[in-house]
Amino acid sequence: MTALITTPGFVDAHIHPDKTTWGSGWLSRTPAQSLTDLIGNDLRAQLSLQDSVEDRAYALMSQAVLNGTMAMRAHVDVAPQIGLKNIHGVRAAAERLAPFLNVQVVAFPQFGLLSNPGTLELMEAALTEGADLVGGIDPESVDGDLHGHLDAIFALANRHGRDLDIHLHDVGAEGLAQLRVIAGRTVAEGMQGRVTIGHGFALCDASQPAIGATLEALADAGIWMATCALGADPVPDLDLVESHGVKVALGSDGVRDAWSPFGTGSMMDRAHLLGYRTGASTDDELERCFRLATTAGAELLGSAVVKGFSGPTSLDRLEFAANSIPELVVDRPAPLRVIRRGEAITLKA
Amino acid sequence: MTALITTPGFVDAHIHPDKTTWGSGWLSRTPAQSLTDLIGNDLRAQLSLQDSVEDRAYALMSQAVLNGTMAMRAHVDVAPQIGLKNIHGVRAAAERLAPFLNVQVVAFPQFGLLSNPGTLELMEAALTEGADLVGGIDPESVDGDLHGHLDAIFALANRHGRDLDIHLHDVGAEGLAQLRVIAGRTVAEGMQGRVTIGHGFALCDASQPAIGATLEALADAGIWMATCALGADPVPDLDLVESHGVKVALGSDGVRDAWSPFGTGSMMDRAHLLGYRTGASTDDELERCFRLATTAGAELLGSAVVKGFSGPTSLDRLEFAANSIPELVVDRPAPLRVIRRGEAITLKA
Repeated sequence: MTALITTPGFVDAHIHPDKTTWGSGWLSRTPAQSLTDLIGNDLRAQLSLQDSVEDRAYALMSQAVLNGTMAMRAHVDVAPQIGLKNIHGVRAAAERLAPFLNVQVVAFPQFGLLSNPGTLELMEAALTEGADLVGGIDPESVDGDLHGHLDAIFALANRHGRDLDIHLHDVGAEGLAQLRVIAGRTVAEGMQGRVTIGHGFALCDASQPAIGATLEALADAGIWMATCALGADPVPDLDLVESHGVKVALGSDGVRDAWSPFGTGSMMDRAHLLGYRTGASTDDELERCFRLATTAGAELLGSAVVKGFSGPTSLDRLEFAANSIPELVVDRPAPLRVIRRGEAITLKA
Repeated sequence: MTALITTPGFVDAHIHPDKTTWGSGWLSRTPAQSLTDLIGNDLRAQLSLQDSVEDRAYALMSQAVLNGTMAMRAHVDVAPQIGLKNIHGVRAAAERLAPFLNVQVVAFPQFGLLSNPGTLELMEAALTEGADLVGGIDPESVDGDLHGHLDAIFALANRHGRDLDIHLHDVGAEGLAQLRVIAGRTVAEGMQGRVTIGHGFALCDASQPAIGATLEALADAGIWMATCALGADPVPDLDLVESHGVKVALGSDGVRDAWSPFGTGSMMDRAHLLGYRTGASTDDELERCFRLATTAGAELLGSAVVKGFSGPTSLDRLEFAANSIPELVVDRPAPLRVIRRGEAITLKA
């Protein structure tokens, strides 16, 4: 006989709903060896998909809502090749889900910023229209100009009064060095607590000599790490990262898109995968996975409905058939009910 | 509208049903840093569990059957601390599932062979009683005697006319060196095609200088690799391994035991996790995951019911709601029906 447990809602701190093929036909993917290949495949796929960004994003985002996500930070591609189409599509999908899902939109220069001329102007336009955060991507390996890229995105952030969320895939000593530069810029610009690193694979190699110093620099700058527990990419040693004072939140990354056929948009699944990938085995370690999928993301995004959870009578809550949080993370059932404003939600198409 | 597809059954080429807590109460695990810690925790946990080996193994093995597994190779602990209790329990569970599940039992010296005096005699007794294969474990790092360990297990295999299935966790150049020694012994003993390596984590580091030569040696000896797509352990580059002619099959490893709370015994889940962990993205790569979970294991175990699958009218088959094999691997639904000898199976408790 299984008990019923009540929990706060999920927060997806890093997702790409504009790229997904969720709800559309199967995408047979082409091989990709490098980040450059993957980015090229991504653009080609997006330009060829029949269903609109709004329809595809809505399919994925509503799936997430039904599985208990209450807030999400969506990185949305901005580039001359696509204009602001993706931003508008994700915004439209978010509006249809508005009572149930808070969406932060990150204007994300996926295909390069300075290296893809015209992108900077589009980022400016996206922010003027209301995009919530300034995105960034691998200043050295994708944009080829560490300081130029950082100058550009910090300037956008300052001018529009927005926070920053920068994708950092680069590994090794070079990856760690970029992170320390970003930490230094964050402090110099007075943006402590307002910068997130997406992925931060360089922080996932505990054998790197500079990792302790880098984590300390990030912690001093109040920088968050958004991790996605991907199958074939490095994952952080959560004890190491958290013990240095760096805050971590969890996200889905891309779901069933050109990059990967995997993912479901369910943060219950993501918490499970985080445990599986990081070798979580004790009850504390499993509970941490649930915290990173819920209240940690809520603190990062400032989600009042998730932060405000106080127990079984909370107006915004999830109900699961489970005996405990550790067992919930292992069994990863869908919620029995998603309660918003005191009522079980249903979604109309 | 989703189609119906018919597939061969699953084969679990590497599972530890004697250790599982499936169907029993939740096990709150203690931290473990090293293989030695994990082995110690495992023994302590097994000695403290209330439910019998037979009941726990039956719970897991029946779950596997309902999810489409038709044959499995079960590594079962043999040690003076437990005698042949685990062997007998797994055999009893297998007998209760006999029309639906073919079980090979590997007598597995989990807690050491030469380093755990009395184990060798128990292995002999297990084989005399009918255990199907001779197991082994990390001759250097667990048993402390590469040639002594191999002498002992090859002698058992020869005397009883059984195949070998050796757990090899050791990584790096040393791990690869042990594998080449095992390959050499296999050829010298005329046992080509009759030796399996379980895990073989050393084969999962494509950057090792000796990896090509080691894979060639294994291929020449007809040695199989049983991999389990674990979350926090290395996974093979399947293209690299298969292109050198080494055959691979997939298994669950331990399921919800002292080592890890994860796992379900479903080979559909395992195929999915193999894809997720190896970054499978093309249709071919996803189909390979399904092959490794079905016909590859069937070839290793000699499973006639799975090897004999020839299409939708096969007497032993699985039926899924799915549009294609790649989509099946990504969506990982439970089978709609498991058909054995022409009839949908049901299990009585």
